[in-house]
Amino acid sequence: MPERQRADARRNFARILTVAEAEVAVHGAAASLEQIARTVGVGSATVRRHFPTRRALLEAVAQKRIEALCVRARDLTGRDDSRAALLEWLSDVVDYCVRARGLAAALAYDTAADPVHENGCGAALEEAARPLLDRAVRDGTVARDVTVTDLITLIVGIALATEHHPDPAARADRLFRLTVAGLSPQS
Amino acid sequence: MPERQRADARRNFARILTVAEAEVAVHGAAASLEQIARTVGVGSATVRRHFPTRRALLEAVAQKRIEALCVRARDLTGRDDSRAALLEWLSDVVDYCVRARGLAAALAYDTAADPVHENGCGAALEEAARPLLDRAVRDGTVARDVTVTDLITLIVGIALATEHHPDPAARADRLFRLTVAGLSPQS
Repeated sequence: MPERQRADARRNFARILTVAEAEVAVHGAAASLEQIARTVGVGSATVRRHFPTRRALLEAVAQKRIEALCVRARDLTGRDDSRAALLEWLSDVVDYCVRARGLAAALAYDTAADPVHENGCGAALEEAARPLLDRAVRDGTVARDVTVTDLITLIVGIALATEHHPDPAARADRLFRLTVAGLSPQS
Repeated sequence: MPERQRADARRNFARILTVAEAEVAVHGAAASLEQIARTVGVGSATVRRHFPTRRALLEAVAQKRIEALCVRARDLTGRDDSRAALLEWLSDVVDYCVRARGLAAALAYDTAADPVHENGCGAALEEAARPLLDRAVRDGTVARDVTVTDLITLIVGIALATEHHPDPAARADRLFRLTVAGLSPQS
């Protein structure tokens, strides 16, 4: 493909991705490939070439947000209080999942795979979170048998279950704190 | 309407509900009203008269299962160990939600309402669970600020987040136990 055609294809993809982000932000996992094609003004076959499945669409849109969370995990790994660092990062994940409806749906596919889908957004998040969790477990501030996948799946669940709530961010925050604390009375 | 027509209408509804149950069991919240109409052999307007919205469909299908959970809650309220009784009931709710895909989706609407949708399946479940939770809180075995809605929403989240897992029942059970215990090491 000559350079100019490649440049056109890149611009085309960037435009499709931008429209896809907006569509996923509004409709979450129910985002319509046909609607994206109509808004961009291309055939739906063109959109399907970039995103053959709904999951591929959700993952592409989630990618940017995932990258920001990975950077944040690296920043927090230096903190003194390893439990606080882990909880702060997890709380950021809750926040991202609640604000970006498609992200939780994309992660629900990924964290369900056994083993976790290698190239998916879940794998990147897990890798970023591992040093945070390992340090907290080593310090004895988080239970030994908790895995990164457990934590992300619980957060994905909280995001999905609070999607229809009038104040999903506050509701999700409360449920996340409850999950961290457990059901027993705090001594 | 003469008696005979009424009897026909009842039979018609029972048949639609049976087909709807099968459709929801396979496709969960993505169940198609059009497909139900085709299978029953009626127009989709007829199906829509009984279930004007997807939520109405999911709730009708969930109704039977909810009733069984309410009976179970009443049976367990007599148990000596109030925390064990509550946890056993919640574990049954996890199990039902995992096996019946539409139930979690229906409850996600209900538990998100503020206040909880009066006639929905969530309200019936909450009423059934309240004596179990109240007793455990009175006995000091469950934290004072936990609500029935919190517990059911957390379970709904776990069911939704594990939907695509190869062994959703085992995965959901693990995450439920983790939620009960919290993240801190158990002493």
